Amino acid sequence: MNRNQLFEQIRKKRSFLCVGLDTDLDKIPGHLHDTSDPLFLFNREIIIATAPYAVAFKPNLAFYESLGWEGWQSLEKTVNYIKAFYPEIFLIADAKRGDIGNTSQLYARAFFGKLDFDAVTTAPYMGEDSVKPFLTYSEKWIILLALTSNKGAADFQFTEDKKDGDLLFEKVLKISQQWGTPENMMYVVGATQAEKLKEVRQIVPDHFLLVPGIGAQGGSLRDVAHYGMNSRCGLLVNSSRGIIYASPGKDFADHARSAAKKIRDEMDELLEIHGIIK
Amino acid sequence: MNRNQLFEQIRKKRSFLCVGLDTDLDKIPGHLHDTSDPLFLFNREIIIATAPYAVAFKPNLAFYESLGWEGWQSLEKTVNYIKAFYPEIFLIADAKRGDIGNTSQLYARAFFGKLDFDAVTTAPYMGEDSVKPFLTYSEKWIILLALTSNKGAADFQFTEDKKDGDLLFEKVLKISQQWGTPENMMYVVGATQAEKLKEVRQIVPDHFLLVPGIGAQGGSLRDVAHYGMNSRCGLLVNSSRGIIYASPGKDFADHARSAAKKIRDEMDELLEIHGIIK
Repeated sequence: MNRNQLFEQIRKKRSFLCVGLDTDLDKIPGHLHDTSDPLFLFNREIIIATAPYAVAFKPNLAFYESLGWEGWQSLEKTVNYIKAFYPEIFLIADAKRGDIGNTSQLYARAFFGKLDFDAVTTAPYMGEDSVKPFLTYSEKWIILLALTSNKGAADFQFTEDKKDGDLLFEKVLKISQQWGTPENMMYVVGATQAEKLKEVRQIVPDHFLLVPGIGAQGGSLRDVAHYGMNSRCGLLVNSSRGIIYASPGKDFADHARSAAKKIRDEMDELLEIHGIIK
Repeated sequence: MNRNQLFEQIRKKRSFLCVGLDTDLDKIPGHLHDTSDPLFLFNREIIIATAPYAVAFKPNLAFYESLGWEGWQSLEKTVNYIKAFYPEIFLIADAKRGDIGNTSQLYARAFFGKLDFDAVTTAPYMGEDSVKPFLTYSEKWIILLALTSNKGAADFQFTEDKKDGDLLFEKVLKISQQWGTPENMMYVVGATQAEKLKEVRQIVPDHFLLVPGIGAQGGSLRDVAHYGMNSRCGLLVNSSRGIIYASPGKDFADHARSAAKKIRDEMDELLEIHGIIK
């Protein structure tokens, strides 16, 4: 999917919501446990319920891998289902991969060849050759970790470079711009660091940002839009637990729909305020 | 597996070799393609041939994931095979994972719960809470990326901290020592940076180091031992392509055995020189 298509979907759905499919066997409603594939069946209901309000879905690989190959099978079924019935949806593998060049090439093959994801989150620590193999696929994206939403972000991401005063996450933003373009790269910037989005936007005015951390992690959607939105929206804001676990009962999908719609309505308003839609 | 057991195995086998199971369907001998599980059957032959000379095996997840869930199935069969027939072998998931706390917990469950790996490689960028969930498992290890063997290592890992002059990889070594101990943490330090091992050893004298980059990537085993070995060896040196693809023919396992034995013989000598064995 290219940037124009993503932007058109945002305008059409009046939403920049990404639903995180962090599907945990311990948290899904009990009645699904008696089925042949609880993870996939849960996801399918969540997808049907929330797709009208979401422009992206983001399965986090950890949740599937915790069940071994059967979890990967549930993941593949989920991906294939979305691609078959919701081809307009931007599909993100939240995998945070990154390895030496010849190995990252295999990860790219996994997520863009074998599976048909539109984007994969990648970790910057190993530098250019760990990221570039992902960028050889046409209309596929990497989403590079810049400033994350967790407490541990403070351990290394704010390291100030003696040479030019850049903080490490700023250095990641700057250097990685030599690797790709706003047409194939996005960045992860946590909503818990909303005020930092202003600085981020000075370095990457055009790139899309994937913003986790609203909801369970405590970030504010209004602040994120205020500091991070650009003329083509430039934001995908993720919510996982707040939507998919909105209810622990058989009515989980209805509650997920309501939770997604509520965020979409707020996004609709923010898109209007910022002049993206009328 | 605990540190004593690993050290005893090193002394017994007179080796600190880790064999990287970077098993690529495009590179394994043609006759295996007609079987039901080429990856596992290739691995099994490699394991049988090289286990006498190796103390660790290290499947890299990218190679398995590139085949989707079937690749994960081959991985699980490989893990179960090693655990059943070679329980003394230290088994590393080269996965370079790392995510927010509640998600890393699921990755830990994947590699230490569902699969029975002894260690998993982790990326430091997201800091403490991305790593700590792995350390709650008894006698399991994380192997944190410090200084990697690839060209891209230069992009961020040498960033000099304005505050105290530490380079980023040194900062990773220092800060992470508050998270774990030499009994449950190792570090990745590339053999292509062998002279840097001297500095690394000043910061982490006791920890085991996992050293990739000899063979195809060009690092020298002698230099690695010179700068990196400590009184309990403290090194696991990995070779992947140089061993597992030593021959493209039906005799691949014989050639892998010879390649592994050759490295073992050199390691035997180095362990003697450094007074670890007699």
